[in-house]
Amino acid sequence: MTGYDFRSDNVAGAAPEVVDALALAARGTASSYGADEWTERLKTKLAALFETEVAVFPVATGTAANSLALAAMTPPYGAVYCHEEAHINVDECGAPELYTGGAKLVGLKGEGGKLTPATLDSALAGSGIGVVHRVQAAALSLSQATEAGTVYTPQEVAALSDVAHRAGLAVHMDGARFANAVARLGCTPAELTWKAGVDALSLGGTKGGCLAAEAVVIFNPALAEDFGYLRKRGGHLLSKMRFVSAQLEAWLDGALWLRLARHANAMADRLAAGLTALPGVELAYPVEANEVFVRLPESAVTALETAGFRFHRWEGSLLRLVTAFDTPACAVDAFVKTAREAKENA
Amino acid sequence: MTGYDFRSDNVAGAAPEVVDALALAARGTASSYGADEWTERLKTKLAALFETEVAVFPVATGTAANSLALAAMTPPYGAVYCHEEAHINVDECGAPELYTGGAKLVGLKGEGGKLTPATLDSALAGSGIGVVHRVQAAALSLSQATEAGTVYTPQEVAALSDVAHRAGLAVHMDGARFANAVARLGCTPAELTWKAGVDALSLGGTKGGCLAAEAVVIFNPALAEDFGYLRKRGGHLLSKMRFVSAQLEAWLDGALWLRLARHANAMADRLAAGLTALPGVELAYPVEANEVFVRLPESAVTALETAGFRFHRWEGSLLRLVTAFDTPACAVDAFVKTAREAKENA
Amino acid sequence: MTGYDFRSDNVAGAAPEVVDALALAARGTASSYGADEWTERLKTKLAALFETEVAVFPVATGTAANSLALAAMTPPYGAVYCHEEAHINVDECGAPELYTGGAKLVGLKGEGGKLTPATLDSALAGSGIGVVHRVQAAALSLSQATEAGTVYTPQEVAALSDVAHRAGLAVHMDGARFANAVARLGCTPAELTWKAGVDALSLGGTKGGCLAAEAVVIFNPALAEDFGYLRKRGGHLLSKMRFVSAQLEAWLDGALWLRLARHANAMADRLAAGLTALPGVELAYPVEANEVFVRLPESAVTALETAGFRFHRWEGSLLRLVTAFDTPACAVDAFVKTAREAKENA
Amino acid sequence: MTGYDFRSDNVAGAAPEVVDALALAARGTASSYGADEWTERLKTKLAALFETEVAVFPVATGTAANSLALAAMTPPYGAVYCHEEAHINVDECGAPELYTGGAKLVGLKGEGGKLTPATLDSALAGSGIGVVHRVQAAALSLSQATEAGTVYTPQEVAALSDVAHRAGLAVHMDGARFANAVARLGCTPAELTWKAGVDALSLGGTKGGCLAAEAVVIFNPALAEDFGYLRKRGGHLLSKMRFVSAQLEAWLDGALWLRLARHANAMADRLAAGLTALPGVELAYPVEANEVFVRLPESAVTALETAGFRFHRWEGSLLRLVTAFDTPACAVDAFVKTAREAKENA
Repeated sequence: MTGYDFRSDNVAGAAPEVVDALALAARGTASSYGADEWTERLKTKLAALFETEVAVFPVATGTAANSLALAAMTPPYGAVYCHEEAHINVDECGAPELYTGGAKLVGLKGEGGKLTPATLDSALAGSGIGVVHRVQAAALSLSQATEAGTVYTPQEVAALSDVAHRAGLAVHMDGARFANAVARLGCTPAELTWKAGVDALSLGGTKGGCLAAEAVVIFNPALAEDFGYLRKRGGHLLSKMRFVSAQLEAWLDGALWLRLARHANAMADRLAAGLTALPGVELAYPVEANEVFVRLPESAVTALETAGFRFHRWEGSLLRLVTAFDTPACAVDAFVKTAREAKENA
Repeated sequence: MTGYDFRSDNVAGAAPEVVDALALAARGTASSYGADEWTERLKTKLAALFETEVAVFPVATGTAANSLALAAMTPPYGAVYCHEEAHINVDECGAPELYTGGAKLVGLKGEGGKLTPATLDSALAGSGIGVVHRVQAAALSLSQATEAGTVYTPQEVAALSDVAHRAGLAVHMDGARFANAVARLGCTPAELTWKAGVDALSLGGTKGGCLAAEAVVIFNPALAEDFGYLRKRGGHLLSKMRFVSAQLEAWLDGALWLRLARHANAMADRLAAGLTALPGVELAYPVEANEVFVRLPESAVTALETAGFRFHRWEGSLLRLVTAFDTPACAVDAFVKTAREAKENA
Repeated sequence: MTGYDFRSDNVAGAAPEVVDALALAARGTASSYGADEWTERLKTKLAALFETEVAVFPVATGTAANSLALAAMTPPYGAVYCHEEAHINVDECGAPELYTGGAKLVGLKGEGGKLTPATLDSALAGSGIGVVHRVQAAALSLSQATEAGTVYTPQEVAALSDVAHRAGLAVHMDGARFANAVARLGCTPAELTWKAGVDALSLGGTKGGCLAAEAVVIFNPALAEDFGYLRKRGGHLLSKMRFVSAQLEAWLDGALWLRLARHANAMADRLAAGLTALPGVELAYPVEANEVFVRLPESAVTALETAGFRFHRWEGSLLRLVTAFDTPACAVDAFVKTAREAKENA
Repeated sequence: MTGYDFRSDNVAGAAPEVVDALALAARGTASSYGADEWTERLKTKLAALFETEVAVFPVATGTAANSLALAAMTPPYGAVYCHEEAHINVDECGAPELYTGGAKLVGLKGEGGKLTPATLDSALAGSGIGVVHRVQAAALSLSQATEAGTVYTPQEVAALSDVAHRAGLAVHMDGARFANAVARLGCTPAELTWKAGVDALSLGGTKGGCLAAEAVVIFNPALAEDFGYLRKRGGHLLSKMRFVSAQLEAWLDGALWLRLARHANAMADRLAAGLTALPGVELAYPVEANEVFVRLPESAVTALETAGFRFHRWEGSLLRLVTAFDTPACAVDAFVKTAREAKENA
């Protein structure tokens, strides 16, 4: 096999089970705007999965899920605390600012893409809570898995939520790769979210095998009250909502989502193992989800590109390699082989 | 057959050709965020269809298409002129206001859901152009087909565009049912849009047989410059964009979109013909697309509801019946039969 | 005397007592941003004047006062109901939309610039409360005095507030000419506001003899909670706040505000009496504050303009004449005389 | 003399010349909303002062001036680059975000409150210009004098403007203490602004001896086009505008503004000289305007507080002392004496 696209898990297609569900859902009439049976079943399924009552709002993109969830938590004079490299801070072109009406994102530093309670505590202490000249801390957003391909344990989430809640912030989890994190940690979805203090989750299906399907899952009922209006005025209430819900239903059914995530994670492990077996090759971060950050010599990078592999040059010689629910093992092996040969020939 | 859902064309499912295209597109990797071959082909196809260069921005909802198009035309201190019953004014929960940053929608009156040049001209004359205390007229939005199921001819669009352009406004067309209008008018898409002065079109695929697919088609290049940023910050840039583009591609392919629209229109005609054949039954508006507005005696309405038919009570005894690309003729006939029997028994 | 400017009460200067207070306040240091003794005394004074606890937020413009008050009441997906000719709807270039984050202003019709409970009730009934596609009714804004120079009685305010409150709306009063209304009605400020259901008042000092001083007076404590942040992020928290508060303090002191308003009202009465004594001259609206709306023959209008008088041609031959706290009686008499002579010579 | 308030220059009152001008302006009628002779003269005066054509927009607060100027430069998906401690980033409660419609402020590090071209260049290089996922760099905002009481030379401004302009950014100068900077640098206002690449200046009068008066001075005509609408919809167009313009006119007249600024600067010098004469006392930053940042032993701080002096504890033992146009020399001397005695007694 020559070449493969490791740029992101959003270059992947969609799982056949999900596509089949769409085809089935396409027949006949159904109530629009979410008053359909697929959406109803999805809600039931998510309540069972999370072992608690939840409010569920399917949307088509992760940016929408994140921005709407943050808008439900943050007044226009508010501030959202997050890692400085968080997707909401770097890669959403100001969507959280749009939906919150102009709130400020405060990017904090942290090793391996992760925030620590001490960093958050210190930032909040200096933020001027109650001072009319300062934006007011309103939300903490945690990425799970993080932009560095690492994960927060339930204990780490709980410790951060504690700091946030004590200061009156709500806690949001950007779970574009929530499946990968759960698959890796072996904990329950409940343990990683509301039991650890998360108030609302952006549950990402798209990267995990859907076509375009995310759900905002709200554990704190107060945040759900206005959500329907926020979603509609954002243009994110799909008229034929069944087509988002059907994707998520099929994706959750029979724990498909975890099987797919486990495969993606395993491929990342395989890639990391193959590359770190090469002399002098080291990972920038531990592989805890489905992303591998690795430094390779320029000669190897060139050889890989020549062979048709695609990946992100993260910064300088640091590469980001992302595996997906359908990444074939042979593609991983071909990548490692090309890198090894390039090193040997160098 | 008993019962059928005539509430809207968004209660319909999706055309098999569109679903098949999705299934095909689901295989293998593709560049994300629109740098894929489906999106590329869609752009080519739309340029050919409209016989001119166009900028194309696929999104998942009509509200997004409308609001983003208007945001590209309207400053935050601007005003959008539209029919008072326009979807953007009544049914989008303030989405145009969100995306424009707070512009004002000015709803004008007009028979049969349609604006006239005189009404627009008079409204603009009194709008305080250049007066710093007044919001500034920036865009005209026309619904095609209208909320009353009527259509503007190319000549009517041109006359309205003339008034708008002379006052410095850009012209937007909300084409959620553009296909139905083109199918009815028998003109070319070009004649109904840029040749008649339209600067940007929300081309709706969802109601016409797609699952969730619309495209903002921009004829005036200046309006396209910032559009990518506006779409992204709205959360409307799908990562696996191919899944929207593939729907639209299949929908346009071989003029499927027009065949489907013609069917929907024909079903509306059949429904109207059947109902107006009943003594004393009259249409509120001419049937020019796929909607029938009709007054039926309360006894007939009750009988229809009892028989499982669904429709909107528009206001008082006025019903709105919408047909879709897949409405079966037998459903239409059953509706007429039930109404007739109810009247005869009354 | 030749010529006088009757275009608006904002062409007037400022009352000597107010200017003197500014000069006194200009000496020495004082805490900034409202933590000064002038602002403190103003709050005490307004609580006494309104016979209840109030939260007070001084600002420099009426547009700021109105927009901020509405922002405290209205979510971004909300709607503000008002008269179609209300200043907030017509003359503030979208400021309420900016501050509310994009809420919609719904302008209702009403004779003499006034809304009726029936009109409001009917509009709310059709507004789609709870329907996710519709903006949600959130506030009623009443202008007191109105744009037509008329006033609502306490009973009329109460009846409108009742309708609003029953539907869950908060009630705002745009009191740019509140002083003129109170002076005319002879009621207490309390009777005209919170006792009649008003939740927040924009109390206008500028038109009544200040240089630039308004206060948002909030009767419903829940609306005051976030107000400080809203005002600051609007750029409306003056650092040397004492200079706004000192104006209002002097204006309220010894009921100066009512004396000034009574003078303005009396001059309007004198003007109306003089003009209606001319054969064929009629008022468009009763003179209930300090504005006269009158139709004069074009020959008289020309003569007045030639004589150096200034006024607004409201629409067609309808003139708006506004008197102020310092309008001299001789200016009024000269206006009447010029009009009379023009008519006699015609 | 015991005690004095060194917390900020906004605790000062107003210069008698400015107050007298207000009193004069208070008499008689004048056109509202800026069509008055004071505003006309102010424009002429500022054009002469800056030796070029300028557009001038008086407002009442610095936050309004800054936010509106930035809004004229920055699309809602834009980014404003500034020092991380800039007033716009820290002390305006999100006002720039409100007025720009949600743009992001990017705070950069820099010694002594100042940015360097290298820092800006590097930040812009990594900002993703043209990448649809990233907010787009649109404006550079420089504080003059800075939050650390330092100033940029004309050469430094020019070097920063060069970097900004080459990347397509507009350049804004927050001149809340522009007068102090000009007085210190001995350059012309032109040299420090448009000749060094500044596109728009927030010219601060309030801190320098006015009651509440700032002017946005625009050198780049394209930025002025929409400014009137932006100001109005922000509620910052004062109806009796003459009262802001008259303040600024008097303040500029006969170079009063520079005399007042020189006094404030001299008092800061005197304070710094007195304090650094004490053994072990050092300044945190050079005194280049009217602010002194100094570390004093806690015993001295306590003694000063006991003696009734007021100042900001900036962070830890670092104090900020601000002098104003009317700070008496004896207050400075008393402060130094109290500090010296406290140190001697320690």
